[in-house]
Amino acid sequence: MAADQVFLLAVSLLSALHMGYLAHCVGRSRLKHSILPPAVTGPAEFERTFRAHQNCVEGYLPFLVTLWVSGLFFHEGLAALGGLVFIAARQMYFNGYVTSAKNRLPGFYLTLAVWIILSATGAIGILHHFLDEYLDINLRKMLFKS
Amino acid sequence: MAADQVFLLAVSLLSALHMGYLAHCVGRSRLKHSILPPAVTGPAEFERTFRAHQNCVEGYLPFLVTLWVSGLFFHEGLAALGGLVFIAARQMYFNGYVTSAKNRLPGFYLTLAVWIILSATGAIGILHHFLDEYLDINLRKMLFKS
Amino acid sequence: MAADQVFLLAVSLLSALHMGYLAHCVGRSRLKHSILPPAVTGPAEFERTFRAHQNCVEGYLPFLVTLWVSGLFFHEGLAALGGLVFIAARQMYFNGYVTSAKNRLPGFYLTLAVWIILSATGAIGILHHFLDEYLDINLRKMLFKS
Repeated sequence: MAADQVFLLAVSLLSALHMGYLAHCVGRSRLKHSILPPAVTGPAEFERTFRAHQNCVEGYLPFLVTLWVSGLFFHEGLAALGGLVFIAARQMYFNGYVTSAKNRLPGFYLTLAVWIILSATGAIGILHHFLDEYLDINLRKMLFKS
Repeated sequence: MAADQVFLLAVSLLSALHMGYLAHCVGRSRLKHSILPPAVTGPAEFERTFRAHQNCVEGYLPFLVTLWVSGLFFHEGLAALGGLVFIAARQMYFNGYVTSAKNRLPGFYLTLAVWIILSATGAIGILHHFLDEYLDINLRKMLFKS
Repeated sequence: MAADQVFLLAVSLLSALHMGYLAHCVGRSRLKHSILPPAVTGPAEFERTFRAHQNCVEGYLPFLVTLWVSGLFFHEGLAALGGLVFIAARQMYFNGYVTSAKNRLPGFYLTLAVWIILSATGAIGILHHFLDEYLDINLRKMLFKS
């Protein structure tokens, strides 16, 4: 396995390090605004920073799952590329959200677009695999060699 | 790998899409009750909806791990079926929780039951594998061919 | 796959059961302090317990990803051992945090140390794999057989 999905694994590792970095940013925001754990309320900027990170946590596993399904059943390189764009979009979202709730939107929409593409390509790939394997229907041939 | 665990991967993808759907439901609840991010407090219905989703997020990774271990070491089809029931139970839990804290309980208990079954079958499967591989003890033979 | 990464899968299952146990501890803290869902505020001890669990949830997926990358590209046994220490460190962190915010620190630093080791060994392993596979540069040979 190690050698087979090395690009997906490299992007997964990068995303894990990025999540660690975002957690670190929340810690710095705690210091800046003197918010001691376990408090999660305080000045508006801290609350936006805290929530930005929480939303990244919520979306992280759904992202990883679609990254892998898309990479295994559609195209590993494209999925890995999508993963890199997703991580950059998350950083945009986080940076934007820290400044104002409205500024989170560009990063949010880019994140959502990448996630929908990974989900759709993963779903198409799995569907193609099922049809080919169990019903002997080859979608690719039907579409491109008719 | 792609071809081998296709049922586990399909259920994983479905669960990721379901988590996306639940996040979308929280967004709709924000609109309905006019709760602008980053606020997470407001009318009781919104707070229940928000918490229902948070609890689903908390339980999502422990679920996926037991789904895979059970599917790899016990029985892929049964684990995938358990995964489908889990997703349905999560929706029950969410729908119930939105109406009242008490109504979350049927879905919660069903979720818990599936999780315990996946954990137990996964643990039995791994234990069997270890005993067979490293101590040359075959549990299945001992139980069924004595 | 099942037979190949059995130690990583066993540690993953154990970590999932541990997360279930921590969620159960939060439930018991709710009973002890009579905090009915969906409320997440109350006496200081309950709030620390709640936040301790939330922080474990946040860090769980980044941990699992680095566990697997380190296990696949560096050394499975060492990564699995790191995983066991991580789970123990999480319990230390949780127990400490329940008593006071300051007492979470020893467990936190141990958790962080293990995570950094898993991340670094995983990154080294993947880098080594890329250099060897695509640039025909073998780091191990360069370092130990010059």
